[in-house]
Amino acid sequence: MSNAILLVSCPDHRGITAAITNYIFQHNGNILHADQHTDDQTNTFFMRVEWDLTGFDVPREKLVESFAPIAQKFNMEWSVNYTDQKARVAIFVSRHLHCLYDLLYRRQAGHLDCEIPLIISNHQDAEGLAKQFGIKFCHFSIMPDNKSDQEKRELELLKQERIDSIVLARYHQILSPGFVEAYNNQIINIHHSFLPAFVGQNPYDQAFRKGVKIIGATSHYVTADLDQGPIIEQDTVRISHRDELADLIRKGEDLEKMVLSRAVRWHLQKKILCYGNKTVVFD
Amino acid sequence: MSNAILLVSCPDHRGITAAITNYIFQHNGNILHADQHTDDQTNTFFMRVEWDLTGFDVPREKLVESFAPIAQKFNMEWSVNYTDQKARVAIFVSRHLHCLYDLLYRRQAGHLDCEIPLIISNHQDAEGLAKQFGIKFCHFSIMPDNKSDQEKRELELLKQERIDSIVLARYHQILSPGFVEAYNNQIINIHHSFLPAFVGQNPYDQAFRKGVKIIGATSHYVTADLDQGPIIEQDTVRISHRDELADLIRKGEDLEKMVLSRAVRWHLQKKILCYGNKTVVFD
Amino acid sequence: MSNAILLVSCPDHRGITAAITNYIFQHNGNILHADQHTDDQTNTFFMRVEWDLTGFDVPREKLVESFAPIAQKFNMEWSVNYTDQKARVAIFVSRHLHCLYDLLYRRQAGHLDCEIPLIISNHQDAEGLAKQFGIKFCHFSIMPDNKSDQEKRELELLKQERIDSIVLARYHQILSPGFVEAYNNQIINIHHSFLPAFVGQNPYDQAFRKGVKIIGATSHYVTADLDQGPIIEQDTVRISHRDELADLIRKGEDLEKMVLSRAVRWHLQKKILCYGNKTVVFD
Amino acid sequence: MSNAILLVSCPDHRGITAAITNYIFQHNGNILHADQHTDDQTNTFFMRVEWDLTGFDVPREKLVESFAPIAQKFNMEWSVNYTDQKARVAIFVSRHLHCLYDLLYRRQAGHLDCEIPLIISNHQDAEGLAKQFGIKFCHFSIMPDNKSDQEKRELELLKQERIDSIVLARYHQILSPGFVEAYNNQIINIHHSFLPAFVGQNPYDQAFRKGVKIIGATSHYVTADLDQGPIIEQDTVRISHRDELADLIRKGEDLEKMVLSRAVRWHLQKKILCYGNKTVVFD
Repeated sequence: MSNAILLVSCPDHRGITAAITNYIFQHNGNILHADQHTDDQTNTFFMRVEWDLTGFDVPREKLVESFAPIAQKFNMEWSVNYTDQKARVAIFVSRHLHCLYDLLYRRQAGHLDCEIPLIISNHQDAEGLAKQFGIKFCHFSIMPDNKSDQEKRELELLKQERIDSIVLARYHQILSPGFVEAYNNQIINIHHSFLPAFVGQNPYDQAFRKGVKIIGATSHYVTADLDQGPIIEQDTVRISHRDELADLIRKGEDLEKMVLSRAVRWHLQKKILCYGNKTVVFD
Repeated sequence: MSNAILLVSCPDHRGITAAITNYIFQHNGNILHADQHTDDQTNTFFMRVEWDLTGFDVPREKLVESFAPIAQKFNMEWSVNYTDQKARVAIFVSRHLHCLYDLLYRRQAGHLDCEIPLIISNHQDAEGLAKQFGIKFCHFSIMPDNKSDQEKRELELLKQERIDSIVLARYHQILSPGFVEAYNNQIINIHHSFLPAFVGQNPYDQAFRKGVKIIGATSHYVTADLDQGPIIEQDTVRISHRDELADLIRKGEDLEKMVLSRAVRWHLQKKILCYGNKTVVFD
Repeated sequence: MSNAILLVSCPDHRGITAAITNYIFQHNGNILHADQHTDDQTNTFFMRVEWDLTGFDVPREKLVESFAPIAQKFNMEWSVNYTDQKARVAIFVSRHLHCLYDLLYRRQAGHLDCEIPLIISNHQDAEGLAKQFGIKFCHFSIMPDNKSDQEKRELELLKQERIDSIVLARYHQILSPGFVEAYNNQIINIHHSFLPAFVGQNPYDQAFRKGVKIIGATSHYVTADLDQGPIIEQDTVRISHRDELADLIRKGEDLEKMVLSRAVRWHLQKKILCYGNKTVVFD
Repeated sequence: MSNAILLVSCPDHRGITAAITNYIFQHNGNILHADQHTDDQTNTFFMRVEWDLTGFDVPREKLVESFAPIAQKFNMEWSVNYTDQKARVAIFVSRHLHCLYDLLYRRQAGHLDCEIPLIISNHQDAEGLAKQFGIKFCHFSIMPDNKSDQEKRELELLKQERIDSIVLARYHQILSPGFVEAYNNQIINIHHSFLPAFVGQNPYDQAFRKGVKIIGATSHYVTADLDQGPIIEQDTVRISHRDELADLIRKGEDLEKMVLSRAVRWHLQKKILCYGNKTVVFD
């Protein structure tokens, strides 16, 4: 049994919902979930519809053609995905392995519906963990003078492994704009602060010196601007004067794991729509 | 400018969403919000649709007749409300006035879209506050031997004041089943515990003696079973061994105010659907 | 019945706790609460001790002299306060009255142990509320060319009313360094963001445009640097794409009220010690 | 470098803090942390003091004798522990392995200062995980007719492995009173509900049917009464009508892991004192 998921964004207009739901109904689809949102400031309409394909009379290879008249009429950006097509995800990691470990556990437990055929790192630390889970591990050391070449080789490898999405699970290298462009809105990062506070390096150290009473973590799509991409999810935890820097790092680990895994889960479930620097998350 | 809000629940079936959104579109309504949910266990479909009435060509007095064929086809329970018709709310309170005070402030600040023409109490404590806000205050002392008569008088008064909904803002009297029946799913209570823990009297005292590390508050619709009606909203706050009973009560006050006001706000916005002992809240 | 509260900070050293608790014990004081903390980075020791004065044999006017040898030995900064001496607090406010309203309610409910004899504003909006609670209201319009004079007059009034501490309950004027100096670590502000994110004006608007998934509020002591003083308390609340700017402002109100009132309560209970740009809060 | 940790509870009395801190000071100990609490209802005094043993002139084997006069004078229950003596912990688990996995990860990451030489289970599921972490795994199938014998064999094994504390990481067997007695206040359980709500079996199912808007997890010391022992830690997470039973279970996993690991960490750090059915946690 498989479902189709349609994601739509377009200028708001009378009749969009009716047109979409009618289309599905007339082709004998059974709608399981339908969410919509209108952003009043930009007058943009967003919709996610998921329907059961049992009995649906448009074959996959004909759907683009079949839906095109509606899409054109309302000037839609749209995509359709099928729940029986598992996304292939590569994880990039440096030396902190807790998020990697957590993602691998969650996939194994059935909470993340994807394949993870590849782990890439600029260090060797994750190699054992990759082996333990039977996942291909590739080490690409990144230096200022070889970064461009290494990214080219990484992109080839990603292509070869048919990778759809990339998760930066505490990967402490800045990807070049060209690399980011190749996986537009398909690269998810975890930043270990409550953005936009404490951009850049050592956010826990920054937070500790500032004397904040709450720390946070932020998961976002990667864009060419460091730590500035559309925010998908954030969460926070209370700290006190009793907490030393090591406690912030320890408490933050739990936040990072939960925030990143929620973002990845929603991404895989096609629940996220980006517009400008923001996201709609149909949780 | 006014909107219509349609609430629907019915057995799940192919084509419901299409039928409803088509109906609105064909009568020239512009859908602003549409939320739906299907409960898999009971196979029940729920929908809330809000549309702009500008240009909508079905006059209010004809809507029931006009929508009836769709409602009958899918065996719907349904209701329609208009945002320009403000609900009239009566608040019942005993001696703890913080929730009353909070509701009155929020209404004044424009966060609760209703009229509050009446405050009823079994004590005199709230009289000054009622006067301060220019609201009619009626005192009904409740004794075991006069309860039935007093409730009858209260119901007459509520009718006379054309009250739609009742908020029990720490009203420490149990309403009789007949009274509850008269305002089915229109009476909202705040219980000062995380239900189903600590039902009944003195929940903070129960929590303190139990040694819990978190306390809560619960807002629910009132049914004939004490503290057992459909839960609308809950929230919790952390406590520690340093907190004495008075601290639980003080910290709980903030919870109660927030939880009750959220529930009342959603109720007024027609965002809540009840089914069995549960609620769907289209927040 | 009254208690004494001793606050101490000094370089960390063997024997400080023993010296202080011995002093109190030998003078027949009964310790009710004792909290200490050592900041490892600066090697600073902090302590708060509260003891019952019943039977304590050092009269208040002799305490400074009596405790001096211990204080000198350990090079302490210290102060002693008595719970029967209520602090006198002035509230500064501009046009948003929710925090003012909330503080006045909490004082009336017995949750803030202070006197509030004075409300100062650069607008007229709070006058009615001040009257309702029987509190003196003084309007000082602030313009670029009269600010210095007006602050001088405010300081005279504060002196005349014997004000100990000032709460900026959404007061949208920057106090001059000289004014801040006169009430060093005695002025508490509420900033409607999760500092250090969204410093300055219109933080909800900044948050909305940034697309964050959580908003916050921060209470801090006021220093000469705008929104940079030692943070006392913060809290956060979740938002989503469904929340418009008005929803952020509404949800933020609850945060601001709770965060500010907690900070003021701890300040009044002498539970806060400042060091550098940080606070120790012995909650 | 090693510290000593003294835990004391006794009837409240003038001079206890002074007596303890003096004792440490006069023997040349340097106090690092000192926390105290007085329970007003039972007039009980609690204290935790941690001091640096460098230069402390009472050898470990003499400490009981040396401290006895103070302990007797104030009628103390007391214990002393040393941070260089790692507790030996056995984990009991059934078929849900997420808490076990999490505890093993945290110990490996250095967040739990203990040895874990033994995993006991009434199922085989955890065997692979035990092997992966190089920990002895023992399977004891529990049937109504062999329970008593099996517990006897388990106790012998625990003794042989010099186990100090036991963590029930989703162990779905009720320990007999005799077993519990042998490890009084040394057995920590995780219950997957916000106790006292949803005692016993299938708490997520109970929560789902009740329609609560928040679920929780509770870690507590095990006593002879099922799910009634002193609560150490609780936490909660928000759910909605969109969450099915499987979502409650998935969201609850994160809660269970965090709540249990916090409780175990505090237990190992000797930060918990029990009294009656409550705990003091000097976090």
